[in-house]
Parts: sequence; C-alpha cells; structure tokens
Amino acid sequence: MARVFNFSAGPAVLPEPVLEQAREAIWDFAGSGMGILELSHRSSWFDEVITSAEARLARLLKLDQDQQVLFLHGGASTQFFTLPMNFLRGGRATYLDTGIWSAKAIKEAKRYGTVDVPFSSKPERYDRVPQPGELPALPEGTKYLHYTTNNTVAGTQFHWTPEVSGDAFLVGDASSDILSWPIEGSKYGMLYAGVQKNMGPSGMAFAVLRKSLLERAEADLPTMLAYKTHADNSSLFNTPNTFAIYIVERVAAWLEENGGLEGMGQRNKAQADKLYAAIDGGAMWTGLAKPESRSWMNITFTTGDADLDKAFVKEATAAGLNGLKGHRSVGGLRASIYNAMPDAGVDALISFMGEFERTRG
Amino acid sequence: MARVFNFSAGPAVLPEPVLEQAREAIWDFAGSGMGILELSHRSSWFDEVITSAEARLARLLKLDQDQQVLFLHGGASTQFFTLPMNFLRGGRATYLDTGIWSAKAIKEAKRYGTVDVPFSSKPERYDRVPQPGELPALPEGTKYLHYTTNNTVAGTQFHWTPEVSGDAFLVGDASSDILSWPIEGSKYGMLYAGVQKNMGPSGMAFAVLRKSLLERAEADLPTMLAYKTHADNSSLFNTPNTFAIYIVERVAAWLEENGGLEGMGQRNKAQADKLYAAIDGGAMWTGLAKPESRSWMNITFTTGDADLDKAFVKEATAAGLNGLKGHRSVGGLRASIYNAMPDAGVDALISFMGEFERTRG
Repeated sequence: MARVFNFSAGPAVLPEPVLEQAREAIWDFAGSGMGILELSHRSSWFDEVITSAEARLARLLKLDQDQQVLFLHGGASTQFFTLPMNFLRGGRATYLDTGIWSAKAIKEAKRYGTVDVPFSSKPERYDRVPQPGELPALPEGTKYLHYTTNNTVAGTQFHWTPEVSGDAFLVGDASSDILSWPIEGSKYGMLYAGVQKNMGPSGMAFAVLRKSLLERAEADLPTMLAYKTHADNSSLFNTPNTFAIYIVERVAAWLEENGGLEGMGQRNKAQADKLYAAIDGGAMWTGLAKPESRSWMNITFTTGDADLDKAFVKEATAAGLNGLKGHRSVGGLRASIYNAMPDAGVDALISFMGEFERTRG
Repeated sequence: MARVFNFSAGPAVLPEPVLEQAREAIWDFAGSGMGILELSHRSSWFDEVITSAEARLARLLKLDQDQQVLFLHGGASTQFFTLPMNFLRGGRATYLDTGIWSAKAIKEAKRYGTVDVPFSSKPERYDRVPQPGELPALPEGTKYLHYTTNNTVAGTQFHWTPEVSGDAFLVGDASSDILSWPIEGSKYGMLYAGVQKNMGPSGMAFAVLRKSLLERAEADLPTMLAYKTHADNSSLFNTPNTFAIYIVERVAAWLEENGGLEGMGQRNKAQADKLYAAIDGGAMWTGLAKPESRSWMNITFTTGDADLDKAFVKEATAAGLNGLKGHRSVGGLRASIYNAMPDAGVDALISFMGEFERTRG
C-alpha cells in the first residue's frame, strides 16, 4: 500500500525518514538487542536519547541557560490547569481568546485567580488574532500573558511575539506550530505544546520552562502536578513516555539536518502561500481566516456549501488526500500542512481543487 | 543484532509478534496509507482500535456491565493523587503499605482525607504482603481499600484478593502484574496500572472504573482530573496516547490467542517456580521476599555480597541477560519475568546462575 497525503490536524503526518528509523528501533535500539519500547528509562541508552532531545530542542529554539526543556505527561490540556495551579495562585493573568483551545485554557485558569481577557475574536468565529500594537498594556500585578500561538481549529496564527512588561512572563501554547518557524524561544517564561502535530506521536507534552520562575511557584501541590518535581528530576521523576521522547529526538535531528527552523519556516510559508493563492484565485473557495492572521499550518476554507464541502472531502479521500474535513465546530475544509507535509502533497491538493472546481463548479 | 533476554522492571520486554505488527503499522496502518502514529484519534480506523482494546480487556478481566475501561494520561503516579482527589473528599480510606509505590500512594492520599494504614511491612524492608485473614475489619465509613497487587521493587505479590465491607470499594494498583494471572476484575471499584510492564509502552495508565461510583466523585475539579470527564468521553476527551492504546490492543489480542489469563498465569507461575527453585537450591543465593509473598513477576534475590551481585549483573549482561540489577532502594538482583518473557529466557538465566555459582562460589 502506498502512503497517502495526510492532512489531519493531529495526530498528523511525520517525516518518513523518522518512521523508517522507528521501525528499526522497535525491534532493536542501537544494537542493544532490545526495542525502544522495551528499554528502561534508567538505562544509558535512553539517557542518551533524552539528553540529545533536550540539547537539540534547546538549539532549535535558541533557549538560554535559564530555560529547561521538559517532557510532561498528558497533552496541552493538562497544562491548561497545571500552569495556573503552579503560577497564578490567586493573582491575575491575561489570556488572549483566539480559539476553542484558548477558551479551554481560560476556563481552567479561572479556578486559580483572576483572568483578564483583553482580546477575543469569538464573536467573529475566531477568524483573526490581534496584530502588533493592538493589545492594551497588562494590568498592574499581572503574573503572565497566555496566548495560543496557532489556532488549529480556526486556522489563524500569530506571526509575531507579544511583549510583556513588569514582572509578567510570557506563556505560549504552541501545540500546532511548535518548531515550524524561527520561534523566539528565549522570550518565553513557559512555552508548551502537545507533541502530536509537529513533534511526534500523541500522549505527551513538551514544555520549555524558565527555571528562575520556579521560585514563584506554588509548593503545596500533588507531587506530579508541581513543575518543580519534573524540573528537578529532568523529566524522569516517574516513567516518562519514552517512545514519544525517542520520536521527538529523531524529529529534532531531522529538523537540524534540513535547515533548522529557518529552513522549515521558509518551506512552510511557501506551501501556505501557494495554497492560499489557490483558494483566493479560484472562484469556488473562501478562506475562513482574515488574511493577516492566516495560519501556515492549518489552512481553513470552504466552498460555502456544506454538501459540496462534504463531496470534496469524500472525493479527495478517494484520491489519496486524507483528513481534509474541517473541525466540527467550524465546518468547511481544513488542510493541516505541518512540517512533515511534502511539497508534493500541497501540489496534489491544489491540483485536486482545480479539478474539483472544473467538474463541480 | 540478535535480541537479548530483557529482565528490566519496566519499560519491559513485549511480545515479539506484537513488535512485528507495530513495525508494519508505523508505516501503514491496516491499508490506510497512514502510519499508526499519524492516524487521527477521531478516525474510524482508530475507533476500531480503541473499541477492540476495551472489549478485549473487559473479556480478559471478566468485567461486568457497570465497569468501564479507561486509558488515562500519565502512569500510576498520576492515579496516586487523582484517585483520592476524586473519591476521598475529606473522608477516610485504608491503604496497605507493602512497598515504595504503596508509600507514594499513601503520601498523595493524605492531602485529601484520613488514611488508615493497618498493615506495613516497611520495617522488614517490605519483604511480605499480608495473608488472608491477617487484615482487621475496615473502620466505619471507609470509602475504599487501596493496595498494590504486586510490589515491583521488593518482589512481593498478593496471590489473593482482599475483601471490603459496607460501602467501601476495592482499589488495586496492578501496574506490575496486570493481565498476568486470572485477576478477579469484577471485585474492584477501581483497578489501575501504568501500562509499561505487561501491557505496552510507557506513558499511559490503564484503569477499570465502576461507573456507579462516579456519583460519589468530587465534581469541582480541573476538567482533566475528573474521572467523569474521561468516562463520559470514552477516553477521548482530549487526544489520548494513541500508539500505546494500539500496542495494548495488540497485546490483549496476543493474550486471547495464547490461553488468556489462565494460560498466562500457569506459564508465569511455572517460570517463577523454576527460578525460585534455582535460588533456593543453590548455595550462593538468597531470595529477598518471604516465601508466601513471593512475586511471579519480579524475582528479587542476592548473593549477599554487593560486589558479587555487581559482577553477576555485569557478566550476565555480557551473556545477553539484561536488566538484572536490583532497584537502588533494595540492592541485590532482580529478574522481572513479565508475560512476554519466553521460557528460554528463564532457562538461560537459571543456567547462567549455575555457571556463575560453579566458577565464583
């Protein structure tokens, strides 16, 4: 069976060279005579894997010495409550409401303090993110500013990094655009991501945490929920998701061998530009995100006719273009073109759109 | 490279037929043209996987209609606080202290109510578990009885199922003996396990929860920490560890094709009996657990000489017998012989012990 082009929003397409290595490693990891799934997390073999993963990610994200890479259980949804549980502590934080995942993060944060929401595009179905200069100053005493760097469902993305002032630190949920462009990692107090889109398989969160912030963290927490536990134990307090860490390490190696985040950003932007040009250039298609907020990762569009959208998804699937159905909360169509999507996949989609428009338009 | 015999305590050896299937599925799952790591958790392909996993586990553990199979983020350590957070609610529970993992569970539970500990073998370095008839009646108003069914570190195991009375329900942490013998699943209010020993790769917990207990659960919790969230959404509230669920499903299929838990229990007991006979029969070895409490999964023993133990581990590793070092808190030697350990591995270890005793004794 040939592999199809997989436009799923996550879990999502992974680089084929990484998959080929994983197939070998499942039987025998690096000549150990044991598979990667079977290796003790306390073994020297695995120690090399996790140390390399941390080092590669620190290089790719240009982290400074005060920042630590963490591999945490659960996806981003677990960070939605652990972040405020550790750092909000009855104080106030600012959240930007740019999509359903932002809204979920806001809901969980409200359990732990005051949440200011100076920007929400919810009334416009989350069709945009704020632009530089559009956000008010943070209220006095704000502990952190939280935002979703890319909105998987609505198909919008911050192409800039918000600034914080005073003692506030910046927090980004980068689940769907982590490692996809030259992210300014050192600007963040905390940057986190469920790894199942651009980094690896599902079931783990990646985080970058500024170590000096741990002094401000709540100490009286269940052991597993304190970031300090995982920071002090280099993500090995309990058995981590060893296989996900292995894949993330291999993906990071693939990125370093293929131009790093600069190279990836150029390729991702070129793919997105080409696809948006097809949407804007065809008579049948409407993009769902405001142009200045358009995501390079999740391209949302529609024919404007739910039945026609449905027919498109069905026929595209039959043509080997999978996962193009929009999120149930938005409808329409969505092409997720993460790092591992080859140019050929985007070209095939554009060609299929043209054909569909000719025959059904 | 030939595969070695892997006696690691977890992550641990997995069945080779499952590994062979996983290698195929990583490239192309069931003719979908997408790998198992890349498949949407909302796809019909994955729906078949998780549904089959639930059904197979329910059959293997002989669950009743009120019991639900859950796949949860994190390992058993996450359940140590989520269990009391959901169910203790300022009340009292009984915990049996039979090992370092029991002690960790007790520590986390104390945050949420009164913890009665009527049995502890800590003063004897956790060398035994209570026997039938040895436990006092549960105090009035006890919400649940929690115990660790098999103690990975000390090498002890309950070969019986404790009884509860009144409204109390039974909770078992079966991380290291789940699916290894005919466990009476329907006796439990909650049964849980980190899956990285007998079920699959690390980074996920498996749980069986009695649905009617959810009426007694705390409702005011972070969304991800309420068992109800995951029960109501069939473990798909957020993206689960899809690959671990796939492996667990394949392991459950392998069990069903190989005599189920009855067959596995017979084979595991026979392997353990043979190994304990070698320990008791040799002049060089001392078993660390009291005979009536000996585990069929983790066989702990020592030469009584730390340097000799160290030499044994080193020479065994060179002979293709890996992971025999005892846990750092106990020292000595440990052979973990989970479901996937072939008879040949146990035979090779026994043969190596004989040779070591002849040359070094």
